[in-house]
Amino acid sequence: MPSEKIREGTYILLYLNPRKTFLVKVEKDKEFHTHKGFIKLGELIGKSFGTKVLSSTGVEFTVLKPTIRDYIFKSLRKTQIIYPKDIALIILFSGIGPGSRVVEAGTGTGALTCALAYYVKPRGHVYSYEVRAELIETAQKNIERAGLAKYVTIRNRDVTAGIEEKNVDAVVLDMATPWLVVPHAYEALKPSGSFVSFSPTIEQVIKTVEALKTNGFVGIETFECLLRGMQVEKGRTRPHTLMTGHTGYLTFARKASKNER
Amino acid sequence: MPSEKIREGTYILLYLNPRKTFLVKVEKDKEFHTHKGFIKLGELIGKSFGTKVLSSTGVEFTVLKPTIRDYIFKSLRKTQIIYPKDIALIILFSGIGPGSRVVEAGTGTGALTCALAYYVKPRGHVYSYEVRAELIETAQKNIERAGLAKYVTIRNRDVTAGIEEKNVDAVVLDMATPWLVVPHAYEALKPSGSFVSFSPTIEQVIKTVEALKTNGFVGIETFECLLRGMQVEKGRTRPHTLMTGHTGYLTFARKASKNER
Amino acid sequence: MPSEKIREGTYILLYLNPRKTFLVKVEKDKEFHTHKGFIKLGELIGKSFGTKVLSSTGVEFTVLKPTIRDYIFKSLRKTQIIYPKDIALIILFSGIGPGSRVVEAGTGTGALTCALAYYVKPRGHVYSYEVRAELIETAQKNIERAGLAKYVTIRNRDVTAGIEEKNVDAVVLDMATPWLVVPHAYEALKPSGSFVSFSPTIEQVIKTVEALKTNGFVGIETFECLLRGMQVEKGRTRPHTLMTGHTGYLTFARKASKNER
Amino acid sequence: MPSEKIREGTYILLYLNPRKTFLVKVEKDKEFHTHKGFIKLGELIGKSFGTKVLSSTGVEFTVLKPTIRDYIFKSLRKTQIIYPKDIALIILFSGIGPGSRVVEAGTGTGALTCALAYYVKPRGHVYSYEVRAELIETAQKNIERAGLAKYVTIRNRDVTAGIEEKNVDAVVLDMATPWLVVPHAYEALKPSGSFVSFSPTIEQVIKTVEALKTNGFVGIETFECLLRGMQVEKGRTRPHTLMTGHTGYLTFARKASKNER
Repeated sequence: MPSEKIREGTYILLYLNPRKTFLVKVEKDKEFHTHKGFIKLGELIGKSFGTKVLSSTGVEFTVLKPTIRDYIFKSLRKTQIIYPKDIALIILFSGIGPGSRVVEAGTGTGALTCALAYYVKPRGHVYSYEVRAELIETAQKNIERAGLAKYVTIRNRDVTAGIEEKNVDAVVLDMATPWLVVPHAYEALKPSGSFVSFSPTIEQVIKTVEALKTNGFVGIETFECLLRGMQVEKGRTRPHTLMTGHTGYLTFARKASKNER
Repeated sequence: MPSEKIREGTYILLYLNPRKTFLVKVEKDKEFHTHKGFIKLGELIGKSFGTKVLSSTGVEFTVLKPTIRDYIFKSLRKTQIIYPKDIALIILFSGIGPGSRVVEAGTGTGALTCALAYYVKPRGHVYSYEVRAELIETAQKNIERAGLAKYVTIRNRDVTAGIEEKNVDAVVLDMATPWLVVPHAYEALKPSGSFVSFSPTIEQVIKTVEALKTNGFVGIETFECLLRGMQVEKGRTRPHTLMTGHTGYLTFARKASKNER
Repeated sequence: MPSEKIREGTYILLYLNPRKTFLVKVEKDKEFHTHKGFIKLGELIGKSFGTKVLSSTGVEFTVLKPTIRDYIFKSLRKTQIIYPKDIALIILFSGIGPGSRVVEAGTGTGALTCALAYYVKPRGHVYSYEVRAELIETAQKNIERAGLAKYVTIRNRDVTAGIEEKNVDAVVLDMATPWLVVPHAYEALKPSGSFVSFSPTIEQVIKTVEALKTNGFVGIETFECLLRGMQVEKGRTRPHTLMTGHTGYLTFARKASKNER
Repeated sequence: MPSEKIREGTYILLYLNPRKTFLVKVEKDKEFHTHKGFIKLGELIGKSFGTKVLSSTGVEFTVLKPTIRDYIFKSLRKTQIIYPKDIALIILFSGIGPGSRVVEAGTGTGALTCALAYYVKPRGHVYSYEVRAELIETAQKNIERAGLAKYVTIRNRDVTAGIEEKNVDAVVLDMATPWLVVPHAYEALKPSGSFVSFSPTIEQVIKTVEALKTNGFVGIETFECLLRGMQVEKGRTRPHTLMTGHTGYLTFARKASKNER
């Protein structure tokens, strides 16, 4: 199996160091300018991922194939995006995986949508609700850039008014009032399906957990995830000085049946 | 789409509360005994997931469909297993997803193997190395129980002696001496592919990062993930008193090409 | 200056390892029994602190002079005690020090009281309110054991009904309803004086901060402190597996004058 | 007891909000300029601490009496200073208190020195070693400003060459090579006395702990302290987004006698 070649139109991650990377589309006659000189993108066509290139000022960059984490971090933004660390827990703890049918709200600029789509493919699907029409174009661009458009349906609708899909595997919420969606999530989920909500404030969590308890959910758990980067160098090893102290709380629950005994 | 029925031979998660759950195989004439009475498993056949049952002493359990997280937590164990929080980061941060070809070592009792297999299906594959023959049977059982056997090949071999596969998307290590595998991982990975290592001690991390730096890897990053559970109840909301203070450090890297410019 | 000798009646800390220590009063004819054999306490009389002794089964213990942290950890308990890490922040962040006059509530079993008394001596004083009469005897014992009785006045009174003292340097609360004490604390404090409250739940914090904002306090800050123990051994260095995930939130504020401009 | 008045020469803390405070010396004809207008300091003379003043642009400031924490945070700096959270643990966990005789190294710009002096007064003393002569003037200024000069003796000497004092209660190190001082600390300490070291990197900790184990110390413990600030506002309560992820590790130990049994 030969290694994958870079083509016209391919997205690449230009890597300088862990804190300086650029998600760029390869075009024949384009130069990509950085604070360390420019790179002629056309010259990359036909090379393999992993190759090293020198910028116009002689600085070495590595050409990496973007991963789903890179697409998340490099999303075009109009809103705060959810962090990869939180997305990772949302997906694994809810059991979302290849083949899952997932409802998401709100779409925002599509960072979480991309991750969900990446993990449900090739046979699953993401139905993503977003009431703010002005965000959808950016979301669509981010999803297309990651090559995931065919796994996503965006609905320009207010999810607090109801969810159209039935029998879905998971409902994932990243929105201001998740508690208003809890009854709709119950209707949309298949029995035993997963509810997930991401909320920055503790008051949102308290209201959402109350709603889950009174709407037939079990297995209700709330977590926060602290990710700590380490500087690893012989004789100078230590955690980094700055860290993100808080992004949000993650609440998980499972739908129990109401009628059967 | 009708909701999924419980059959003879199905694995179910009997849920009492977030801290008391049981992974059980449904068999016609079996009773499952808990400290809250027993449950006649045969009576569940034909019911839907999500259903509630009463034990012999009248305590209510919910019958959930096990998620990949449940299979990880409930792995038959002979060794310390890696935690779901760390597995979640391993998978998302390395870009492992549907279709990925992944090398793993060591298999241990197969908890991480299950998660990798779950996310690479239906067209990817996991090649899992384990030098300790006595662990393989347990690992195989855990993988079969989760219905993932066809996505996994276990190799009873010492990964520090070399990796057979070529052009894989990721190499994932959870073993005592990951630094000895770094050159083999480089050979096995496709350019731009992901290396991941999980290690409990900082000395292991220092050695592994040194090896990555001198073997053509870029994008080297080390993290630790602290997961904090919250008690959410109106008027009594607070983080739980006890938490797991440390499981291990996660080191990620990407393969850069050596020869091209 | 000769080193300090152990006498009849002295309290000592028998140290086996960081997790096994015993706070013991030296008495001439007493044996102190542990799971590693017994120690004849009378034989320690006349020796210096720091000395090593063998138990009846030949296990070595070190005889340490108890520090204020040891007195806190070894408090006779009837209630949950506040942790040394939190006490340390309470004292330094509020500026409590030698000479300070401090009001505390509730006394509980006196662990925090001891620490406050230790730091305000020799010329300061702690006025400690406790409405539950049944706790006061234990508190008194803990305070006497630490040799701090003359720096403490315990008041068997409900602090939510008012504070007798005026012009104090700090008011420190570790009780269920700190927000009810905020107006009394304002009256008792000298201008610019420090208010501190320790509360396990976030709802308590929210109510207390609201009360501080509407009662003339400035510099309102809330923190939580996570203390992580490390295992340090060449080749096996790592944070400990278990840690205390939460004790409580600490809220600090300063009294601003209401009338002057 | 009348409340304390502001005089010519007094240091005050001008408080705008928890993140904007200024440590200022009151002088009759001086204006203090901020981004929110200036304040005529002379007009404060004769007023009480806690009073509110308006700047030239009508913005309200509160005049607080600086606490030891304020003096630490506002130290004139030429080097990185140690954080109040770490200082608080150093002091309480080592038992340093009123009357203690303490050796410190290095002095740096005197932030930790001030805190130690504040807590050992009125009868204790701090002997502070600093080999870099160029730092001592700044340290002296910070100590004088906090009114603590008579409790501190600065020694412009290399502490790795030996400690002059004997029978001290504690040795506190914040320097690059604490392991080189361990044997000298043993000689200087009274039996049962406390050793403390603050180090940013894990390699420093490993070397120091090794030295403590082979030099007659017991009760060796290493911690790191994570302090998390909370935003507390009804409906918007959450930890702050940014936090300091690492300052340093704290290692504590107690001197055991070598000769006695």
